[in-house]
Amino acid sequence: MAPQTEDTESLELIDAWWRAANYLSIGQIYLLDNPLLREPLTADHIKPRLLGHWGTTPGLNFVYAHLNRVIRERSQPMLYIAGPGHGGPGMVANAYLEGTYSEFYARISEDEEGLRRLFRQFSFPGGIPSHVAPETPGSIHEGGELGYALSHAYGAAFDNPDLIVAAVVGDGEAETGPLATSWHSNKFIEPLQDGVVLPILHLNGYKIANPTVLARIPEEELLDLMRGYGHNPYLVSGGFDGEDPMLVHARMAETLDAVMDEIAAIKRTAAERHEAGEEFERPRWPMIILRTPKGWTCPAVIDGEPVENTWRAHQVPLANARDTAEHTKILEDWLNSYRPDTLFDTDGRLREDVAALAPAGNLRMSATAHANGGLLRRDLDLPDFREYAVEVAAPGATTAEATKVLGIWLADVIAENPHNFRIFGPDETASNRLAPAVYEHTGKQWNAELLPVDKNLSRAGRVMEVLSEHQCQGWLEGYLLTGRHGLFNCYEAFIHIVDSMFNQHAKWLKTSREIPWRLPVSSLNYLLSSHVWRQDHNGFSHQDPGFIDHVVNKKADVVRVYLPPDANTLLSTYDHVLRSVDYVNVVVAGKQPQANWLTMDEAIAHCSRGLGIWDWAGSEVPGTEPDVVLACAGDVPTLETLAAASILRERLPELKVRVVNVTDLMRLQAASEHPHGLSDAEYDTIFTTEKPVVFAYHGYPWLIHRLTYRRTGHPNLHVRGYKEEGTTTTPFDMVMLNDLDRYRLVIDVIDRVPELAATAAGLRQEMQDARLRARQYTRDHGEDVPEVANWSWSSDGAGVSQEDAQERVDETGGDNA
Amino acid sequence: MAPQTEDTESLELIDAWWRAANYLSIGQIYLLDNPLLREPLTADHIKPRLLGHWGTTPGLNFVYAHLNRVIRERSQPMLYIAGPGHGGPGMVANAYLEGTYSEFYARISEDEEGLRRLFRQFSFPGGIPSHVAPETPGSIHEGGELGYALSHAYGAAFDNPDLIVAAVVGDGEAETGPLATSWHSNKFIEPLQDGVVLPILHLNGYKIANPTVLARIPEEELLDLMRGYGHNPYLVSGGFDGEDPMLVHARMAETLDAVMDEIAAIKRTAAERHEAGEEFERPRWPMIILRTPKGWTCPAVIDGEPVENTWRAHQVPLANARDTAEHTKILEDWLNSYRPDTLFDTDGRLREDVAALAPAGNLRMSATAHANGGLLRRDLDLPDFREYAVEVAAPGATTAEATKVLGIWLADVIAENPHNFRIFGPDETASNRLAPAVYEHTGKQWNAELLPVDKNLSRAGRVMEVLSEHQCQGWLEGYLLTGRHGLFNCYEAFIHIVDSMFNQHAKWLKTSREIPWRLPVSSLNYLLSSHVWRQDHNGFSHQDPGFIDHVVNKKADVVRVYLPPDANTLLSTYDHVLRSVDYVNVVVAGKQPQANWLTMDEAIAHCSRGLGIWDWAGSEVPGTEPDVVLACAGDVPTLETLAAASILRERLPELKVRVVNVTDLMRLQAASEHPHGLSDAEYDTIFTTEKPVVFAYHGYPWLIHRLTYRRTGHPNLHVRGYKEEGTTTTPFDMVMLNDLDRYRLVIDVIDRVPELAATAAGLRQEMQDARLRARQYTRDHGEDVPEVANWSWSSDGAGVSQEDAQERVDETGGDNA
Ligand SMILES: Cc1ncc(C[n+]2csc(CCOP(=O)(O)OP(=O)(O)O)c2C)c(N)n1
Ligand SMILES: Cc1ncc(C[n+]2csc(CCOP(=O)(O)OP(=O)(O)O)c2C)c(N)n1
Ligand SMILES: [Mg+2]
Ligand SMILES: [Mg+2]
Repeated sequence: MAPQTEDTESLELIDAWWRAANYLSIGQIYLLDNPLLREPLTADHIKPRLLGHWGTTPGLNFVYAHLNRVIRERSQPMLYIAGPGHGGPGMVANAYLEGTYSEFYARISEDEEGLRRLFRQFSFPGGIPSHVAPETPGSIHEGGELGYALSHAYGAAFDNPDLIVAAVVGDGEAETGPLATSWHSNKFIEPLQDGVVLPILHLNGYKIANPTVLARIPEEELLDLMRGYGHNPYLVSGGFDGEDPMLVHARMAETLDAVMDEIAAIKRTAAERHEAGEEFERPRWPMIILRTPKGWTCPAVIDGEPVENTWRAHQVPLANARDTAEHTKILEDWLNSYRPDTLFDTDGRLREDVAALAPAGNLRMSATAHANGGLLRRDLDLPDFREYAVEVAAPGATTAEATKVLGIWLADVIAENPHNFRIFGPDETASNRLAPAVYEHTGKQWNAELLPVDKNLSRAGRVMEVLSEHQCQGWLEGYLLTGRHGLFNCYEAFIHIVDSMFNQHAKWLKTSREIPWRLPVSSLNYLLSSHVWRQDHNGFSHQDPGFIDHVVNKKADVVRVYLPPDANTLLSTYDHVLRSVDYVNVVVAGKQPQANWLTMDEAIAHCSRGLGIWDWAGSEVPGTEPDVVLACAGDVPTLETLAAASILRERLPELKVRVVNVTDLMRLQAASEHPHGLSDAEYDTIFTTEKPVVFAYHGYPWLIHRLTYRRTGHPNLHVRGYKEEGTTTTPFDMVMLNDLDRYRLVIDVIDRVPELAATAAGLRQEMQDARLRARQYTRDHGEDVPEVANWSWSSDGAGVSQEDAQERVDETGGDNA
Repeated sequence: MAPQTEDTESLELIDAWWRAANYLSIGQIYLLDNPLLREPLTADHIKPRLLGHWGTTPGLNFVYAHLNRVIRERSQPMLYIAGPGHGGPGMVANAYLEGTYSEFYARISEDEEGLRRLFRQFSFPGGIPSHVAPETPGSIHEGGELGYALSHAYGAAFDNPDLIVAAVVGDGEAETGPLATSWHSNKFIEPLQDGVVLPILHLNGYKIANPTVLARIPEEELLDLMRGYGHNPYLVSGGFDGEDPMLVHARMAETLDAVMDEIAAIKRTAAERHEAGEEFERPRWPMIILRTPKGWTCPAVIDGEPVENTWRAHQVPLANARDTAEHTKILEDWLNSYRPDTLFDTDGRLREDVAALAPAGNLRMSATAHANGGLLRRDLDLPDFREYAVEVAAPGATTAEATKVLGIWLADVIAENPHNFRIFGPDETASNRLAPAVYEHTGKQWNAELLPVDKNLSRAGRVMEVLSEHQCQGWLEGYLLTGRHGLFNCYEAFIHIVDSMFNQHAKWLKTSREIPWRLPVSSLNYLLSSHVWRQDHNGFSHQDPGFIDHVVNKKADVVRVYLPPDANTLLSTYDHVLRSVDYVNVVVAGKQPQANWLTMDEAIAHCSRGLGIWDWAGSEVPGTEPDVVLACAGDVPTLETLAAASILRERLPELKVRVVNVTDLMRLQAASEHPHGLSDAEYDTIFTTEKPVVFAYHGYPWLIHRLTYRRTGHPNLHVRGYKEEGTTTTPFDMVMLNDLDRYRLVIDVIDRVPELAATAAGLRQEMQDARLRARQYTRDHGEDVPEVANWSWSSDGAGVSQEDAQERVDETGGDNA
């Protein structure tokens, strides 16, 4: 397929497309009516509020037009990521030119009335957003919050060997941290198994109100930077000082051909080497630096101020287009400079010769199935998690490291789904104890240098580890939005690093659900381990359970939070979340050896209920009301609650204690607030309306109040949790520091059950003394007092010591970082 | 001052120091007792739980020892930032060797008993944390959450012209986004006004369980990368395959001399050029790549597995040091390999010849005042904010853009405090409308290329703009922790990008307050504008008021949240926060033209109360109880509340409405929960215990419930706020989408005041119709219905239209991005 770059006809076609896209973009920003300027433009044709961003748009359109040529010539599937998502009008314009827009939205027809509607709806109440949004065909990237263009692009490219993802990166965007590190993604791409990302650095020189760093360093320095990032940079510069765009088209077309040839050559060599069983060194993938004026083709000067090629072109260059006839005329001239009459026929339809640049069918970037991942998504083939159950002869009779058990199942998930499931993590998959199991059938994908000493690294693999939570999140989002599955395992505290990325993804999902043509994508699944209660040796900076609080601010339709208390419940939970679609599932689970409470059958029942009364743990008398409810959520709070229950059972045998464990946190919310919310009737049966409830919670205690303040029994609810006290210390010292320990819970019961006030004063004092003793023991010995460290549940009442205590202590060390 | 690198005596001294620091680091990780190995090491001398990180430590110690030489030789003040903060034992060891540790902590004396305590306390209950913490003398950087080493370093360097900040960057850390972009900070440093940052990339090859990207790309690529970042890289490599450390010392010393000479030369040239009135091109500041084995000098192989120079050295290489005599012997041999007898005298004191490497007094990096910023902090000289008040003849009689008014005052704050106050922002200072005013006496500091078209850029300036919220936050933290003042202005939604950085800073402040020798530093002040209600044209991705929720999870002692409803209250609030210390102050304020409600005197009273009854807005009858309380917090909710109050006043003149505005959000919390919390008695007087309260809140409504659930009247509290509904639309459509609009608030009152249920049905229906009409108007006209857009408060009752409505609409466009 001989590229045609010297063919001026094809360059003119590109130029016509570009002019059409620019025209449509400006029309969207400014016009209410008179879309083809068939009558003289008046103030009435102009929107009263001018909202949108012009500056980035001609560049986005320029790239789009040129990509269309190579897609057509090479039948090359491509996905377009517009880093500066504020260039929404451009992406909509191209989709419209390709005919896709009218296919998705019949109202926006390919005629003058369609054009009028297209213009009017943009950034208009009841219309479409100003950014590249879920509403935009061909998009998986909103780009409102800048920084994730390349991470998303790479996520889309994994396991799509035939795809090229063209990712336009704003030069302002390039200053963000997430973007700055995402260039290194090229060390994690395998040329045969994965697709290619073609980064296009859009060096238009400015951001909102400033020049950009990359545009103001010497060109040689910029090229060094790109080489340092492992790329082979191509520079296309033009459009300055009134340069004829045709010359820039020629250079761009030539460069793009060279780049496409180079990509093809790399792919070919990789295949040949593979065939020959030879190692293939990481290639220097090409990338393009496109240096053009910000707002290219808009008026050079308005009201005496330079606009084109300055930051003033960022948003709406002519904000006062309605105020004087002169300004209106500037807009009219500007629009006419694209010669709309040469682009649209009398009906207002794109002229056929221009339309011919669009690739056919799904090769149109606005029509690619990759941008509507639900079309491509196939359910995972999940091994039966029941077969991975840990034995639980009686509650607490055995111990397990929950995440390690999960890892064994995940290893088989990987084996069964070798092409559409990946695990992402910031260098913590081993620390979180999914390893070594998960490496049974795969390795960590790594395309930088390999050394003999390395373990579990491989050129292609299902585990993606890079020390960037942003990259893990961005890659995973890109992977999911293009129809695949995955999970992100992370230290609980540091997941806050991606709070804002989670926000954007949750917003994307919320909106997507309202768009009929967007099919469901796999849920984004977090596995948060090394959690607040067991960061014994990293201390305070690693202790933060607040991601849950953050997540539950988002639309209830989209978010789910699970706190499985042991290994079997974790298995059951993860089986559930890997089947689900269109959610963000937050699963918090410990990695330390902990008692197993439920058999697999019990675990399944418990997880489908989302919460339950553990009658074996309480001392209720059937047919009568309990005196107190001990509720718990999270593995460590569950342990402390059971230990408290066992003390109460032994020391206050008359007291009727109900123990409730909550694994699906959203059950606590009112049914009107969350789809998982318990009905008030059910809530009241479980928690009672009048009895004291002492709730031991994994995270910040006030979240439980926030979730339950509408419940009848809320005034009787007393919550313990993490109250931001911590340091490098023992596990039991940590719970004591936060008043979540068993002794404190017993005191809470005594203080809240009216009858105990006077009668249990002795026990209360004992509990106080036990706390002091336990604290002093840590100071003397550096570990927890044996009665706590060795405690285990016993079915006949009080806790007894176990032999495996030292083993458990040993397991604490050595794998946390 | 001739450097002495060829002097082997000095190299031996460096080596002795290094061995001593390594010895003390290992001692801290492993030993409970027998600190000088004066008896054979037994299991009893070893800690039961081995917690800490060895791998990074020999590198940190190596750098420290070498810096000490140049500090001494050149009397050069330096601050040390340990990016991999998990190398805590190393930083503590060096402070101890310098004598500083014993000065701060007399218990940890310079003798054998002091050594024993030093070892024992590390990562031990009741002792010190495993990381470089506030407890560590000489530190401003915890480094538990990786990625901020360089941002902090640059923040410390601003306005400290004589300081060199040596910043060790972990090669794993270098993979994080924030770190990857922070290299570009060198475009924001002015050689005369600011200090120098010397980045030292610690290329030890590994992170927790993986090699690092930068260690596994060709050296030439890495050098390109550093050049591309604008640096002049020096490579020191050594210690591999048993190379004699003395050889590496020689190379490092020589390199360090070259680097220090180069820095001095740059500074000199800059001064000369300045003298001559000539432009000085951005220099290529030197940086060092230090390639040494991870865990350098630990056992090469343990139990048959390579340890030194692998990821296995990351944490505790010999996790089982107690289990067999053989393992204990390995530890003993390892410790002895540093020849402790040659380092410490019989009393256990560092031998004088080794101690001689330490610089004198405050030149010791562990004793520098820059690391205890409170020592250097001077109060700002604040112009009297009262003089910047906007005129308010009557409530609502004038309008202003609150942040613009603040900008005028800030301009003078800058003028009065030209050396210790800076404003940070991610390219949004103009969009948030602090500009143009703030540029009156300063520019945006910019040391990349300048072009004639540029505005408000200057080589040295008080405003720091880079498109990285991480950098803004990190720079500001570094600036504050070294004793200066500043604020961070940001779009409200995108401040979530630094959620985790805020966490770490809040934790740092919390702990610092408990450390007697740490003096208070200036508060970290946020100015969040372009907030959720007025992101009309950026839409959903830019709408998120949840940072407040995030912040209030942190220790109440440390966090403050303000929602000033107008310009004068914003001025008063900002005067307050710029005077405060040791807090994080979140201030949310609008930038759009809005009514001014309070005169400056009223504003001051209102802000010092933190909340207040606006009697002019309500229709209470003195001496009787109100029928309903309309409460509000935030500028837009205040507007809607007042509009609702005015409808009620006109339409239900008998109804006794109390209007309460809350500006200090923490007043709502119980006094037991937050220092600003109202007493229950006061709360009850203001909000009543029995009357319905309709609360219009700026953010997610459930936060108000979370803050007030303990209050008597809580069951009667009904909160409206942002419930995650939004898009690109008009301001009033946004409040309607979230049921926060005036009409809805009136309906809420009707639904909640029992007497109105039957009597006000007509008004209720009118309100419903008004909503529909208002919505339809936006669809038809693209702007808000005039009765809303032009509404303004009138002292004699209902709202009236104003002339300036169109002006207000016009102001919406053109500056938002
Ligand atoms: C993380 C983030 N911070 C701030 C903004 C506000 N903002 C919107 S556009 C823009 C400038 C973008 O500049 P650039 O990436 O160069 O895009 P272009 O010039 O192509 O418009 C900024 C700072 C944002 N969208 N995202
Ligand atoms: C943001 C963040 N993510 C993950 C971690 C967990 N973690 C602790 S140390 C470490 C590896 C650090 O490697 P490097 O920066 O090379 O330090 P060094 O090799 O000097 O120990 C990781 C991933 C962390 N501390 N911070
Ligand atoms: Mg740009
Ligand atoms: Mg490293």
